[in-house]
Amino acid sequence: MDLNELRRIPLLRALRDEQLEILQGNAQIRDYKKNKRIFEPGCKDNFIMIVLEGKVRIYLAYPDGKEFTIAFLEPGDIYSSHSKTFAEAREAAQILAISAKAFHLFMLNNPTILIGMVKALGDSLGNTLRIIENLAFLDIDKRLARFLLDAAKEKGVIKEEGTFINLGLSVEDIALAVGSSRQTASMLLNRWERDGVIKRNRKTVFLLDEPRLQELGERTE
Amino acid sequence: MDLNELRRIPLLRALRDEQLEILQGNAQIRDYKKNKRIFEPGCKDNFIMIVLEGKVRIYLAYPDGKEFTIAFLEPGDIYSSHSKTFAEAREAAQILAISAKAFHLFMLNNPTILIGMVKALGDSLGNTLRIIENLAFLDIDKRLARFLLDAAKEKGVIKEEGTFINLGLSVEDIALAVGSSRQTASMLLNRWERDGVIKRNRKTVFLLDEPRLQELGERTE
Repeated sequence: MDLNELRRIPLLRALRDEQLEILQGNAQIRDYKKNKRIFEPGCKDNFIMIVLEGKVRIYLAYPDGKEFTIAFLEPGDIYSSHSKTFAEAREAAQILAISAKAFHLFMLNNPTILIGMVKALGDSLGNTLRIIENLAFLDIDKRLARFLLDAAKEKGVIKEEGTFINLGLSVEDIALAVGSSRQTASMLLNRWERDGVIKRNRKTVFLLDEPRLQELGERTE
Repeated sequence: MDLNELRRIPLLRALRDEQLEILQGNAQIRDYKKNKRIFEPGCKDNFIMIVLEGKVRIYLAYPDGKEFTIAFLEPGDIYSSHSKTFAEAREAAQILAISAKAFHLFMLNNPTILIGMVKALGDSLGNTLRIIENLAFLDIDKRLARFLLDAAKEKGVIKEEGTFINLGLSVEDIALAVGSSRQTASMLLNRWERDGVIKRNRKTVFLLDEPRLQELGERTE
């Protein structure tokens, strides 16, 4: 990869050419087909992953096969393979893998990168706290309502009919993200569609009645 | 507080006198009685907290009063008041509160502090992932068994009788940490004590039969 490609990555934007060259020598572009595993807990290959293209799912998995999604990463997002999580290409994905050892040495000399890492870690921490809040306090229906409302806040577009969200996620993805089975998520989404709360279409969703969804997302005793 | 006190804080150890003096000008020592609130989500007072003495509980809370403990902080631990979590003195506690604005400027010029922050955030993230794993995959009894095994790994002392853990936590604290009611936690602990798996004594616990506890912590279908 050439320096211009590296320079397109937000985290690396502030670096000088000679710094980018050092990184370049310790980085590798990797392509993954859809559903291919990128790393797993305890894997020997210790690297910092920056997503260049596609969508990467970060998740926890249990020996019995149950999975729980922590995040969907998009281009520009950064994550470490040294984690108790798994990563897989949710869509065909291209990543930049930087040797963790080189990256750590590099961080020491580049406060801008370090600040980027502090920000990325802080964001991840906020995300995991939100997940814990949902798991500890809410039932599946409330989690699902919250999930849609959070997505609307993050990338919703207000249209005449309601809030349009290009989720880019299948029902299975949504189920994994709220910690339910595909059947339960599907049943709830169908019910809400029948009740005129949402309207679905492949991987997009319209929130037709956001106040109602807000009610559905609230905890009641 | 004098510079020697600041120097005792691991995160600040590498700083030079003139750097410590800058921090000193932006920091305040605060004392809290047991159970006193230190900060809450959305509070205006934006500061970095370093625990100097005592024990601080970090938790999520819901309007209906339900709470879920994220961590117990001990001397040397660091946390930000800009968070969706609450903090309270679980025991009488003394903290150092550094203005967040000053701390951020300070970080920019001190990579050692930044690295300390990356480490602290990475540890917090690992901790929240473990909590999510427990909440998503395990029932209360398994969470409680895991909680004791984790505590044994972290601060257990092998003795003739078994592994001794100076938990420093009441049954109520333990319940909050595994997301159960006090009644359920108490019932499980009593059952395990009766079955000879553990032996309790105020805020300490002996793991008498660790292999059995390991079994209890495993997920079965």
